[in-house]
Amino acid sequence: MEIMQVQEDLVCTRSVKNLEGISLRVMKDLKGNVLCASDPVGVGIGKWVVTTSGSAARWAMPNYASITDLTIVGIIDNWE
Amino acid sequence: MEIMQVQEDLVCTRSVKNLEGISLRVMKDLKGNVLCASDPVGVGIGKWVVTTSGSAARWAMPNYASITDLTIVGIIDNWE
Amino acid sequence: MEIMQVQEDLVCTRSVKNLEGISLRVMKDLKGNVLCASDPVGVGIGKWVVTTSGSAARWAMPNYASITDLTIVGIIDNWE
Amino acid sequence: MEIMQVQEDLVCTRSVKNLEGISLRVMKDLKGNVLCASDPVGVGIGKWVVTTSGSAARWAMPNYASITDLTIVGIIDNWE
Amino acid sequence: MEIMQVQEDLVCTRSVKNLEGISLRVMKDLKGNVLCASDPVGVGIGKWVVTTSGSAARWAMPNYASITDLTIVGIIDNWE
Repeated sequence: MEIMQVQEDLVCTRSVKNLEGISLRVMKDLKGNVLCASDPVGVGIGKWVVTTSGSAARWAMPNYASITDLTIVGIIDNWE
Repeated sequence: MEIMQVQEDLVCTRSVKNLEGISLRVMKDLKGNVLCASDPVGVGIGKWVVTTSGSAARWAMPNYASITDLTIVGIIDNWE
Repeated sequence: MEIMQVQEDLVCTRSVKNLEGISLRVMKDLKGNVLCASDPVGVGIGKWVVTTSGSAARWAMPNYASITDLTIVGIIDNWE
Repeated sequence: MEIMQVQEDLVCTRSVKNLEGISLRVMKDLKGNVLCASDPVGVGIGKWVVTTSGSAARWAMPNYASITDLTIVGIIDNWE
Repeated sequence: MEIMQVQEDLVCTRSVKNLEGISLRVMKDLKGNVLCASDPVGVGIGKWVVTTSGSAARWAMPNYASITDLTIVGIIDNWE
């Protein structure tokens, strides 16, 4: 899993069916890379979170058919 | 998921069977890397999109047997 | 698998259900990257361990439904 | 998927059973990294191809039990 | 798959159950990165080998329940 910070929301009006209705966030990882994660937790901008990748990202969603490969799974209690 | 820009079409006349009939695009990611993605959405050149990788890339295709590992899943509404 | 050193504990009070009750550790790999791993072994801070990633990380947990993608699987006997 | 160039053949006389009889090629990716791919297409040295990775690499083989994680899936028609 | 050289043995007396009895090797890849692989072939130190990663690493083991994500699958006949 990786430690990332939520940067902003991301909207895709036109998408494949299994991405519809899923909250997407622009993320920055600890090396400064910008990625896109699905967010089943509901996290505010600026928060530091733990993300999981690969097939685990689908298991972390309410609906396993969600075609994400990166999901926010927890908000870190204390991270500078 | 990653944020990438569609660069151009890519054609493979000779391929394995489960790649036939699938639209392929040359992509550039945010770090400048060049990749190849399957496109079930139908995206124009120059557009910024969200891609998913790994086994999720197959789930995002109309036919799960497609042997892609990177699929365009949505067009981003606003990206500079 | 990779060789990493345990840095500190990591706590997520608010998380998805399948992460609850799992010990999380902040890890540093041999290139200095900081990651987050699930720990079913119970390892002290500073120890050098072997980690596994991807779907194997779930198989290494007592409960396969754990949504981790990186798990500590053994403590290395001798590592400088 | 990635765009790579076939460099040379690679032979492993001693291998695990599920690698026996599979054509292996030394590949170079667009960043100059050297990798090893299984080749069900039959591609000549110097050709530019599309490769797929992860579990898709097994689906692209005639026998799914092949333990590859990188497979050549098509020859690109025009690539400089 | 990747081309790596076997560096030395690695021993974990304390590990999760599905890693017990598996030969582990410290590996160096072509970029100089140090990794840990399971070895069902029985390879001597200094040899150049092909490794497979991800779920294929488990399929390459005699027991699929082995929680490895990197397995040696063949010894390369000629590699400088």
